[in-house]
Amino acid sequence: MIPLGSASFKLLAVNAEIIAVGSELLTPFRSDTNSLYLTDQLNQLGVEVIFKSVVGDDFKRLVAAAQHALFRSEIVIFSGGLGPTEDDLTREAVAEALGLSLRRNEEVLAAIEQRFSSRGWKMSPNNAKQADVLEGAVVLHNANGTAPGQWVSGKFEGRDRIVILLPGPPHELKALFESECRERLRTKLPPAFLATRVLKVAMLGESHVDARVSPIYKRYCNVQTTILAGAGEIELHFKARGDTMEAAQARVDEAADAVEEELEDAVYSRDGQSLEQIVGYWMQMRGATLAVAESCTGGLLAERITSVAGSSRYFLGGAIVYSNALKTELAGVPADMIERHGAVSREVAAALAEGIRYRCESTLGVGITGVAGPGGGTAVKPVGLVFHALASASGTEVIERHFPGDRKRIRRFASTLALDMVRRKLM
Amino acid sequence: MIPLGSASFKLLAVNAEIIAVGSELLTPFRSDTNSLYLTDQLNQLGVEVIFKSVVGDDFKRLVAAAQHALFRSEIVIFSGGLGPTEDDLTREAVAEALGLSLRRNEEVLAAIEQRFSSRGWKMSPNNAKQADVLEGAVVLHNANGTAPGQWVSGKFEGRDRIVILLPGPPHELKALFESECRERLRTKLPPAFLATRVLKVAMLGESHVDARVSPIYKRYCNVQTTILAGAGEIELHFKARGDTMEAAQARVDEAADAVEEELEDAVYSRDGQSLEQIVGYWMQMRGATLAVAESCTGGLLAERITSVAGSSRYFLGGAIVYSNALKTELAGVPADMIERHGAVSREVAAALAEGIRYRCESTLGVGITGVAGPGGGTAVKPVGLVFHALASASGTEVIERHFPGDRKRIRRFASTLALDMVRRKLM
Repeated sequence: MIPLGSASFKLLAVNAEIIAVGSELLTPFRSDTNSLYLTDQLNQLGVEVIFKSVVGDDFKRLVAAAQHALFRSEIVIFSGGLGPTEDDLTREAVAEALGLSLRRNEEVLAAIEQRFSSRGWKMSPNNAKQADVLEGAVVLHNANGTAPGQWVSGKFEGRDRIVILLPGPPHELKALFESECRERLRTKLPPAFLATRVLKVAMLGESHVDARVSPIYKRYCNVQTTILAGAGEIELHFKARGDTMEAAQARVDEAADAVEEELEDAVYSRDGQSLEQIVGYWMQMRGATLAVAESCTGGLLAERITSVAGSSRYFLGGAIVYSNALKTELAGVPADMIERHGAVSREVAAALAEGIRYRCESTLGVGITGVAGPGGGTAVKPVGLVFHALASASGTEVIERHFPGDRKRIRRFASTLALDMVRRKLM
Repeated sequence: MIPLGSASFKLLAVNAEIIAVGSELLTPFRSDTNSLYLTDQLNQLGVEVIFKSVVGDDFKRLVAAAQHALFRSEIVIFSGGLGPTEDDLTREAVAEALGLSLRRNEEVLAAIEQRFSSRGWKMSPNNAKQADVLEGAVVLHNANGTAPGQWVSGKFEGRDRIVILLPGPPHELKALFESECRERLRTKLPPAFLATRVLKVAMLGESHVDARVSPIYKRYCNVQTTILAGAGEIELHFKARGDTMEAAQARVDEAADAVEEELEDAVYSRDGQSLEQIVGYWMQMRGATLAVAESCTGGLLAERITSVAGSSRYFLGGAIVYSNALKTELAGVPADMIERHGAVSREVAAALAEGIRYRCESTLGVGITGVAGPGGGTAVKPVGLVFHALASASGTEVIERHFPGDRKRIRRFASTLALDMVRRKLM
């Protein structure tokens, strides 16, 4: 490959492929998730991903994979294999595939050394190879890790190609793609008029949603729709192209609006925000505060609420009350109530919500108690049975549900339902 | 390819690759999970997966992908693309790549028709293509769907190859692999003696671990090693073959034991168990109980502890104390201490741990306070600064750390360090 200056060409065709590098991704334990993020980003730029592959830390196979990719696709993105270990071979393999040399970049090396010394550590010598840069490549600054990304564009077998090397850790890859790659790619691509929209729906079943919305889908044949289901949450994705961005957006909006009209307030988000974020939005709109008392979800609800930056403005805290004694001690549930109705009961859920609201002096209190399994179920109170309570100045509401699935899924369902109760209360 | 009868040869080398077929797997929303299952199954048969790819519903690309795979690997498994629609092209592409014809199999066609009529449906004509079988292929019965799998073995460019076509839906693929492929593959393979071992390490840096263990790796050249890093956790994977299972296991154990000796008690798991499970194991071994008071982790620590089934045997519960008032109200931290030292301080961490231990009457108490970000940091107390405290009958230990990364990663790091403190205390 003949490396070119970054301003020297624009791509005409727009296919990309993604090569995830690392033997760990060829085990039964790990899968490549970076490619999902990258595909989303590339799609937004009007680029289609036509091929994905996973290659182990093997020099020859990496070189061959790189060459096959360069024959097929205008943009080839590698993720992983940029670390300091002997197994990290992406730089070397790409250099070989492209016929480019690697040169140690003193500026990058200094930055890596600085990164270590700022933490009071001494850089071990193996880290130096992270400063090896492909001839002609642009160094992509990695704010979250030692290994920088690299960008090289030029002719491969007479055809224009862009090759991007990104670090494997998802938080490094995402930050780096956003800061260093997105705009740089946009300038190399024909204008893309691809509009997308996501509606998120809580606590309706997938087949129920599908039956209600598929007649609407059929009316908008220029809009590509995808339905994705999780535990208690469904996402409806809409995608359309147009001759202008406005035309593309209008297509997507028309279809999404029609679906939203059908599903009404089950739709909690229309711009990609999570249920946790929407709850935070409404909490702040209403100037309300929230406290929780969790039994079977064991902290998951609080964890989801506090995953939102700034949640301290409305979330006070709460109690995790696994033992019956703590249900009384921290959330004020009368011991004889637990004795009479059992810890998993409508009454105890309500008492948890009311008790934690009183204790924390919050506007709203949530209580959850249930059987997450796999043990602990009985004929009367089977695994999956969960009581969710929401206490406010106007009284306490309790919802009983029997969720399917394993421990993880049941806990996820229960925390989603509780969040949705809070949302509906505040709306 | 010249198809051969199924009994006619045995493979000597044992590499496989997996090609997932379907344009939906090239969207941002779906990933190929079949390959994780297949990898596990193949590894157990002594077969290594050296390459995975995802190809859309495109005839030419599928043919090229099949050919590349057949050059590289003895076993090539396709999943998906066997359905009745025009997009389902796996059969046709594999036929083209292998130079084999497709023949409509009347027996298979009758079975498909029967499947429809047994449900009271009429088979639409497009379904007939699911009865097209590669010349010389064994038809693999699919008990859970209409499209059967196919198995063809023979010479490709003079080399022995096995090609397997499996349906895409995971439950169909798994049932079919188990009933029709596993034993059939075993008879074609040399006896498999592949042993694996995983060591997990907490709170050491990746490059630090790598520098300490790579001299050991080098002494065991027959053992393949992989190092995986998360926020505060590292996994070391060992894999080896041998002439007997005992020999393979001995190789793996020797290398793993040497690494464990080097890393000492930083190794928390030697059989795949998670840190949460190991903490649970030690809690029960010691007959101890645990309570937590979390500020910046917001419930994540409790959530991780209670993700383990049976954790109610040792985890009592605790408090999430986002507001300062709740640090006092639920965990008994003196208000003037918070005023004097700030909520993020060594003193408050210790008081949280001691207070929640006292309040919950647990053997151990954990307190965490810090700045998870992105807001809230100062020059003195920057984002990433976290104090972790562990209180027990013998006193209180506090660890201060400054973690890198975003909110999610900082919270993950802090909860991992807290879990590791508990583990070390109990060991």
